[in-house]
Amino acid sequence: MYVGDIIIFPENALLSQSRNACHHPGVTDPYGKRNIIVNGDGFGVAWYCENEPREDGSCIFKIHTPAWSDPNILNIGRFVKSPVILGHVRAAGNGRNPLEPVIVNFQNCHPFKYGRYSFMHNGGIPSFELLKRDMCNMMSYDAFSGISGGTDSEHIFALFLTLLDDRDTAVTADVIAETIRKTFCGVLTLCRQHNINTACSLNVCITDGVHIVASRYRNSDAEPPSLYYASGTDFSAELGNFRHPRSCRKGGKEVIITSSPLNLEGCDNYVYEGLTTPGSPLQRENFKNWRLIPKNTMLVCTGR
Amino acid sequence: MYVGDIIIFPENALLSQSRNACHHPGVTDPYGKRNIIVNGDGFGVAWYCENEPREDGSCIFKIHTPAWSDPNILNIGRFVKSPVILGHVRAAGNGRNPLEPVIVNFQNCHPFKYGRYSFMHNGGIPSFELLKRDMCNMMSYDAFSGISGGTDSEHIFALFLTLLDDRDTAVTADVIAETIRKTFCGVLTLCRQHNINTACSLNVCITDGVHIVASRYRNSDAEPPSLYYASGTDFSAELGNFRHPRSCRKGGKEVIITSSPLNLEGCDNYVYEGLTTPGSPLQRENFKNWRLIPKNTMLVCTGR
Amino acid sequence: MYVGDIIIFPENALLSQSRNACHHPGVTDPYGKRNIIVNGDGFGVAWYCENEPREDGSCIFKIHTPAWSDPNILNIGRFVKSPVILGHVRAAGNGRNPLEPVIVNFQNCHPFKYGRYSFMHNGGIPSFELLKRDMCNMMSYDAFSGISGGTDSEHIFALFLTLLDDRDTAVTADVIAETIRKTFCGVLTLCRQHNINTACSLNVCITDGVHIVASRYRNSDAEPPSLYYASGTDFSAELGNFRHPRSCRKGGKEVIITSSPLNLEGCDNYVYEGLTTPGSPLQRENFKNWRLIPKNTMLVCTGR
Amino acid sequence: MYVGDIIIFPENALLSQSRNACHHPGVTDPYGKRNIIVNGDGFGVAWYCENEPREDGSCIFKIHTPAWSDPNILNIGRFVKSPVILGHVRAAGNGRNPLEPVIVNFQNCHPFKYGRYSFMHNGGIPSFELLKRDMCNMMSYDAFSGISGGTDSEHIFALFLTLLDDRDTAVTADVIAETIRKTFCGVLTLCRQHNINTACSLNVCITDGVHIVASRYRNSDAEPPSLYYASGTDFSAELGNFRHPRSCRKGGKEVIITSSPLNLEGCDNYVYEGLTTPGSPLQRENFKNWRLIPKNTMLVCTGR
Repeated sequence: MYVGDIIIFPENALLSQSRNACHHPGVTDPYGKRNIIVNGDGFGVAWYCENEPREDGSCIFKIHTPAWSDPNILNIGRFVKSPVILGHVRAAGNGRNPLEPVIVNFQNCHPFKYGRYSFMHNGGIPSFELLKRDMCNMMSYDAFSGISGGTDSEHIFALFLTLLDDRDTAVTADVIAETIRKTFCGVLTLCRQHNINTACSLNVCITDGVHIVASRYRNSDAEPPSLYYASGTDFSAELGNFRHPRSCRKGGKEVIITSSPLNLEGCDNYVYEGLTTPGSPLQRENFKNWRLIPKNTMLVCTGR
Repeated sequence: MYVGDIIIFPENALLSQSRNACHHPGVTDPYGKRNIIVNGDGFGVAWYCENEPREDGSCIFKIHTPAWSDPNILNIGRFVKSPVILGHVRAAGNGRNPLEPVIVNFQNCHPFKYGRYSFMHNGGIPSFELLKRDMCNMMSYDAFSGISGGTDSEHIFALFLTLLDDRDTAVTADVIAETIRKTFCGVLTLCRQHNINTACSLNVCITDGVHIVASRYRNSDAEPPSLYYASGTDFSAELGNFRHPRSCRKGGKEVIITSSPLNLEGCDNYVYEGLTTPGSPLQRENFKNWRLIPKNTMLVCTGR
Repeated sequence: MYVGDIIIFPENALLSQSRNACHHPGVTDPYGKRNIIVNGDGFGVAWYCENEPREDGSCIFKIHTPAWSDPNILNIGRFVKSPVILGHVRAAGNGRNPLEPVIVNFQNCHPFKYGRYSFMHNGGIPSFELLKRDMCNMMSYDAFSGISGGTDSEHIFALFLTLLDDRDTAVTADVIAETIRKTFCGVLTLCRQHNINTACSLNVCITDGVHIVASRYRNSDAEPPSLYYASGTDFSAELGNFRHPRSCRKGGKEVIITSSPLNLEGCDNYVYEGLTTPGSPLQRENFKNWRLIPKNTMLVCTGR
Repeated sequence: MYVGDIIIFPENALLSQSRNACHHPGVTDPYGKRNIIVNGDGFGVAWYCENEPREDGSCIFKIHTPAWSDPNILNIGRFVKSPVILGHVRAAGNGRNPLEPVIVNFQNCHPFKYGRYSFMHNGGIPSFELLKRDMCNMMSYDAFSGISGGTDSEHIFALFLTLLDDRDTAVTADVIAETIRKTFCGVLTLCRQHNINTACSLNVCITDGVHIVASRYRNSDAEPPSLYYASGTDFSAELGNFRHPRSCRKGGKEVIITSSPLNLEGCDNYVYEGLTTPGSPLQRENFKNWRLIPKNTMLVCTGR
């Protein structure tokens, strides 16, 4: 699959969501608003190369400027193929106080990479500065010294890497999922120790190029930011207002996980269904049906 | 006046409009939509220094990244004072085809400067590439070689400089206004010669640090993008959701021209009134009343 | 071949030349100085994808910041493979007057692309602004409207595209070479018409993904900037001070054209030899021998 | 004084040093080489405004791209006046391993600001990652949470702020100097605890807009990076190869501290003299004499 088939060509692709990310079918106010409309504070895409060893990890392209005006994205999207693609558009900070500007730089953009793992996050740890030092003190030196930016997201990834028994050997999808669970427990414990009572939003996505695990989590009555998935054997990028002349490409046995469906027209077909346990097998169905991942659930995609 | 009193501290200041520029009181659909909501493709501010000779022109700070995340703007806004300030947030292109990206760089950001003159533009010449070469051929060599970017806006400014009899000597406000009129005639003639029938939007603002002339113009039945002004002796930045603790500063005999009122709460007080001719004197009144500049009118502010 | 085998891993790779490009074996003063030492005003790489149709052209990644600090280059270099790679580091302007800054933006970075063709240039047309409008007036509308920056280089490419009989059909290497010759004639005629007596430096490289043509040209007694080539069946990136642990990869029947040899140690092995005519076949020899392309000569590499 | 009189107009001004910082009169090999030649990884200038309260601190303009190509610097340099100006050009990392790129972003550029204090650093703590967490654990929460980047420099400043008894009230120059001494002791203790035996280079400059304290320090037999000062009543920017037409401006009772003299021609007039103790009064003399600050000495400039 071309990278652009996910991040550029669909009508509600990530490139489009950088300007306008207000499409959250099946999500009612106010939690849909957790996804910020304008995501102009950076863009990143990680892709695994078909014939490269998975332990070399992903190839990452990131920018800290808006996705919508970047010429390199269009080139990479048109020419680069990959079986596993992660894309992210960033909205830094909470926008509450424009006089304390958000920190927008390359190092704070997602996805993050360490060895075979790629990671991205949508959400936040409130008052992160309060617990940041204690969180760093919990990390292995390797994981800590791999941090190059200052976000809560990158620190969550470093804690995940610390809690993973063996960072250098391939593990099962279940080990990844279980390590995510332990990471969240660590974060929540730190919040309690620092009397942070506001909820954490922990929608994360981690892959080693084989398995993909994504969580939709928030430790409060309110809903976490939206997260959908769709799987099928007959994916084609339905071009909407992009009207790109290039013909659609066929794929199969694919899964797409996204904070907003890639097509706008089929949005009333979404299915809200329970995913009882992490690791439940995905039914392969027609692609246009987007399923909202239930609150506080992990989606575990087991690769070959 | 501090630069920030205009571009940062008011609740609907330019910094805020970079993310959300949907406040157009008194403007009914669809022409209000000519002002694009997200202006994340650059920012610029030009200010004239109190004790510098006007022929040295303005000091300009521009960036091609979003205003909302730029730390330098906050510093300049808090510390730099000036009697004449121009600010601009840019939304490049028309957004119709995201696969032909807009050209976002420093050189295409407003304001533009040549000698004592500073210039900015909101709008566009449709199919500009068609007439660009003929427009360049109309220019004096000096004006042409001063162009460093590729926008219609900068070329309009270069045509203005060509049509000005004497670029090096101070002129009256009326000469500036008359030269703007001639510049627009030149643009419209070029459109006719190239069979461009779509309308031009020519909201421009030119100052030499003494006089300010602003136009709101569109050669069609539809309305041009919005443009307001307010004048008074008692300006204070009404802080809204910015809630900046710094006390408001007083000014007097000031005029503010803006594509969107700087305060949100007083927006139902706007006055739509006729400005019969370019050059009509401005009544000095209480600041909170924003007047919509009528279609195809120039506002001429004559300095001392 | 990985992109990084050319632009990153060799000891005098482009990444290294961005900081320090003073290695010009066999070139004596003063013409070696035409290659500026610090090339920190941008970087670009164009690569053709093995299984993509050549008429779709190259995939291009460009930045206007220094190559040496860009994390994306390292990723692309490590993971992307291509049979035809063009790389460029930019030193804008001539450095004579630091108070008139060079124009450093994405649009002015090399390589440039139009359809199947990729183009880059090392050198300059003196007093380019004087003849710019006449040069634009010589262009086809398509070629002119494809220009998005302001450099002499991009305009030379647009003139080349204008003079090419058929931009949409594959041509032979000789047609490319002949069109380059016509383009240079056009530029020199314009210089004469505008009484520009300073010499033009026209080291250009054009490829359609199949053939590659590179020129080393200067219309004066002095030498043009240096340009070398090497060809062989046994290319391996000799890692010098980079000391990258990754094993070297083997290639064959390859040619590398560069303004500075990629290895430093073998530099006394360079061969200065005459290339009598454009289109002369390249002898396949051991890679470490770099040949200086003679003055005012084109190197024509004919693909399959 | 205009900002540009220091950072732009002198022949060896900071703008020039961004490209070529090899002028170190009186410094013999190898320690002169501690100042890296190309400083293209960012630029910053902090200035205190004449009529603003000193407790509001400096106005800072920073970029993470090369100074030599930035148009905003030229504007600010020409129009902004200040009695206290700090300028910095950055060379990130040590250049040893180009495959682990330096981290070049706004947050890592100097000067840093906290309240009334501005800070910059030339040098480094070796293996900083090893002691970073322990250093953070030594800081007050306020100082720690003010950190927005990842450099050793910014952490040194945060430690200085922690060790200052009262960050909110003006102190004497001697208190600043003594706190710098304590900060260096803290850093050296951490190095010992972590078995870091390579020397620290700690040339720092701190000002509160009234007093300026600068150190030239290295805990080894080798010399620290160069640092000069000059003071006088008759400063004029001697324009060298910049050849700016604007007339020189006169000043008086000024001191300039710089890692490289601003003029090239007078460089054989430098005076190497002992500054016996921190706080020794500066003799006011003719400006062209640059004095090399001795190793492991602080220069303390006491303001009114």
